[in-house]
Amino acid sequence: MTEVKSVTAALLVIGDEILSGRTKDKNIGFVADYLTNIGIDLREVRIVPDSIDEIVAALNGLRARYTYVFTTGGIGPTHDDMTADAVATAFNVEISEDPRIISVLLQWVKPEDLNEARRRMARIPHGAELVENELSKVPGFWIGNVIVMAGVPAIMQAMLAAVGPKLEVGPRTVSLTITAGNVAEGTYAADLSAVANLHPDLGIGSYPSMADGRYNNEIVVRGKDAEKVAEAAAKIEAFLARLQAEKV
Amino acid sequence: MTEVKSVTAALLVIGDEILSGRTKDKNIGFVADYLTNIGIDLREVRIVPDSIDEIVAALNGLRARYTYVFTTGGIGPTHDDMTADAVATAFNVEISEDPRIISVLLQWVKPEDLNEARRRMARIPHGAELVENELSKVPGFWIGNVIVMAGVPAIMQAMLAAVGPKLEVGPRTVSLTITAGNVAEGTYAADLSAVANLHPDLGIGSYPSMADGRYNNEIVVRGKDAEKVAEAAAKIEAFLARLQAEKV
Repeated sequence: MTEVKSVTAALLVIGDEILSGRTKDKNIGFVADYLTNIGIDLREVRIVPDSIDEIVAALNGLRARYTYVFTTGGIGPTHDDMTADAVATAFNVEISEDPRIISVLLQWVKPEDLNEARRRMARIPHGAELVENELSKVPGFWIGNVIVMAGVPAIMQAMLAAVGPKLEVGPRTVSLTITAGNVAEGTYAADLSAVANLHPDLGIGSYPSMADGRYNNEIVVRGKDAEKVAEAAAKIEAFLARLQAEKV
Repeated sequence: MTEVKSVTAALLVIGDEILSGRTKDKNIGFVADYLTNIGIDLREVRIVPDSIDEIVAALNGLRARYTYVFTTGGIGPTHDDMTADAVATAFNVEISEDPRIISVLLQWVKPEDLNEARRRMARIPHGAELVENELSKVPGFWIGNVIVMAGVPAIMQAMLAAVGPKLEVGPRTVSLTITAGNVAEGTYAADLSAVANLHPDLGIGSYPSMADGRYNNEIVVRGKDAEKVAEAAAKIEAFLARLQAEKV
């Protein structure tokens, strides 16, 4: 049996506005779906404030642990945008204006409007590659295993679409959802645990929800091996059928 | 001048389903709003998988840094619910069935249906207090500075409402939003930076967005001193009026 090498990632969301509740994050769910879909396992998410020290500490913790670290937020022209400086500090490299980004900026602002603030958006750590931005043009960047993207969801999505095809990916996680319907979690937990014990290489989760006073539970089986996922799902369907029959 | 003592918090979201994208988190924004509103500053959020080791490491990192740590998820009856065990491990205390929770469970399940799985929901670390749950009755718990809540949003909200009034709170953060409208961030960044430099004790953020091809930017001033917040906001409104006049 060949060992399956997972490609992993963390997402670092940067911004006071998410922590204060002023802005509701829309990037975490999108990035989670996107990475899962291309074969990268998102293993951790952190949200930190606009603070160089906090961003550097989180970056250095995460980039040592995961194949990739994605960041969102903090790359605009205002004083509260400090992600590029934090990334340079984390990698201990210089930061300066990148002529490639100055050229991009000059495509949409007149030379006389290219003030110091706008030039800030061209400051990236030395050695970084650009991450294209089809939507609003000013690029993100990529250095080491860290990929730096905008916080505005539509722009973040444009950057993710540009960088995604260039990433190393592993086998995709296959996922099957089984509707447990009105069978209570406490009723099927023992059977589910037995299936989980037989399949330690799969992730098996139980997700309760209620609608109109009835349970609407779902069980999800996730793993790299589609056959094993299907096998475990079949066992779960079998015990659910038995439990439902017992209820009648 | 008396020093203002901030009360701080971190939120730890527990669950594979958030990291895979299967479930879109609805708790972070709610907790952020709730805490901000009662005078607790949310400083960090982490999302970790259903893994005892990951939960313990995150808990021990966060509880040393912040006044409170809130957790959501992983307290149901199934095998993938491991938050209570992780909290007991983090605090290095025993865990066992709490007779108070067994009583609660017996109010809604028949004694013959109180199987091992359902009894799991009564297992909490020794020394923990209960966090009431008006909605589905099975409580969360509170030990040291860690408050453990359900992941289902409506139940989490019920628990937060129960525990909120018992928390130590600091001065509320006051926030003013100024509409910068169609003035570009790059146009007002220098003026905004000057105001931010004059008010190092305030958080001043610029949040760009676009609608129908026009900027719809907002500037937010946040701080504990309402007078200083208003003062900074007035300066911002003044330079925005000047910049808008210059545009015409």
